[in-house]
Amino acid sequence: MSMTDHIMNRLYDVLQGRKKADPKKSYAAKLHKAGTAKISQKIGEEAAEVIIDAILLSEKKKSKNRRENLKEEMADLLFHINMLMADRDIHPDEVFAILDKRFGLGGLEEKAARKED
Amino acid sequence: MSMTDHIMNRLYDVLQGRKKADPKKSYAAKLHKAGTAKISQKIGEEAAEVIIDAILLSEKKKSKNRRENLKEEMADLLFHINMLMADRDIHPDEVFAILDKRFGLGGLEEKAARKED
Amino acid sequence: MSMTDHIMNRLYDVLQGRKKADPKKSYAAKLHKAGTAKISQKIGEEAAEVIIDAILLSEKKKSKNRRENLKEEMADLLFHINMLMADRDIHPDEVFAILDKRFGLGGLEEKAARKED
Amino acid sequence: MSMTDHIMNRLYDVLQGRKKADPKKSYAAKLHKAGTAKISQKIGEEAAEVIIDAILLSEKKKSKNRRENLKEEMADLLFHINMLMADRDIHPDEVFAILDKRFGLGGLEEKAARKED
Repeated sequence: MSMTDHIMNRLYDVLQGRKKADPKKSYAAKLHKAGTAKISQKIGEEAAEVIIDAILLSEKKKSKNRRENLKEEMADLLFHINMLMADRDIHPDEVFAILDKRFGLGGLEEKAARKED
Repeated sequence: MSMTDHIMNRLYDVLQGRKKADPKKSYAAKLHKAGTAKISQKIGEEAAEVIIDAILLSEKKKSKNRRENLKEEMADLLFHINMLMADRDIHPDEVFAILDKRFGLGGLEEKAARKED
Repeated sequence: MSMTDHIMNRLYDVLQGRKKADPKKSYAAKLHKAGTAKISQKIGEEAAEVIIDAILLSEKKKSKNRRENLKEEMADLLFHINMLMADRDIHPDEVFAILDKRFGLGGLEEKAARKED
Repeated sequence: MSMTDHIMNRLYDVLQGRKKADPKKSYAAKLHKAGTAKISQKIGEEAAEVIIDAILLSEKKKSKNRRENLKEEMADLLFHINMLMADRDIHPDEVFAILDKRFGLGGLEEKAARKED
């Protein structure tokens, strides 16, 4: 793990390490012990919070506070997605590679590259 | 935009550019036109799909197909989170900076750094 | 099935019957054929729409249109919960009995009756 | 409020009454005080739990425990939908009337009656 690695990769290494940590001392260790269903549930919760804060922000565009809240909730959601990656042993770069394949040439093909919508 | 930038940053630039694109020719342009509520709705949908595929994978650990499905759904979720970032003009690095602040020193403090759980 | 039965019970009977219907002619039959994962995904989608419309309504209380939208989305969510009940052969009254047990005496004990929160 | 009313209606009356109750003594009063965003967040959480338990049950059909879990989570979800109804002053019968209009004649028209899917 290098300090120049992307934070998602460094976080993944940290969260993998938490599998062996004391659940009483680490939130991530506690969540790992609870398992995939609990981690998935957290993703549902954090996604709901992102949605709510996004709507609140869009209704009142100039609110600095709402913008900060949304950023915090987005960070929480990304944290728990990373937890799920660690839980299922899926490295962030495996997922980013999929995005890169779809958009790496400048994104000109994003519509064709997506399955459907 | 440099090709050495992280894919989340490059994707953000692409999705910002889509605000001016033809909704008939680009999925992202169409979604931008539909607005924050529609983008948020997609985050809810993709989060549900991630949850479902994670549970299915955890119930049958050796399934290569289920692992690939989960990776694809995670990429879809990250794509739509990035769409919301572009919609609300929140650069990915603003969110990654929050994760970095919490975990940048090796994540030893992750529990204390989180608001509560 | 009696016309005096609660709509959730009548709807359940209808949706059970759709298990044998032609997926090309009935939305419910198509959804049954797609299976539990697809039905669950729809619950995630409809829950997200309820959340979004609730926030929009709360931000602009006098909007008749937003109130009607929320009601429609609530009906969509209840429809898909009923689909999942039919899919898993759980009669609505089995679930309502749980609510009744918790609140049937006037709800005075609702806090104690819930697992935790 | 009559004891012969449907539990969703009786629950609604109880939850309306909780708007004036002491947040320290009642879970519903506490949730009302927290407001629409918090209630909506709970719907997101409970929907995620329903989805997870539905998938777990579908993967192992004979598990009595998983069936009971799903029923409990469905009751939790209906409880919080009812909380949102009380919060926004939408009576359950207003929503059931929409379902009835779509399916009251036996549901033969359900596909046409739904907006689209």
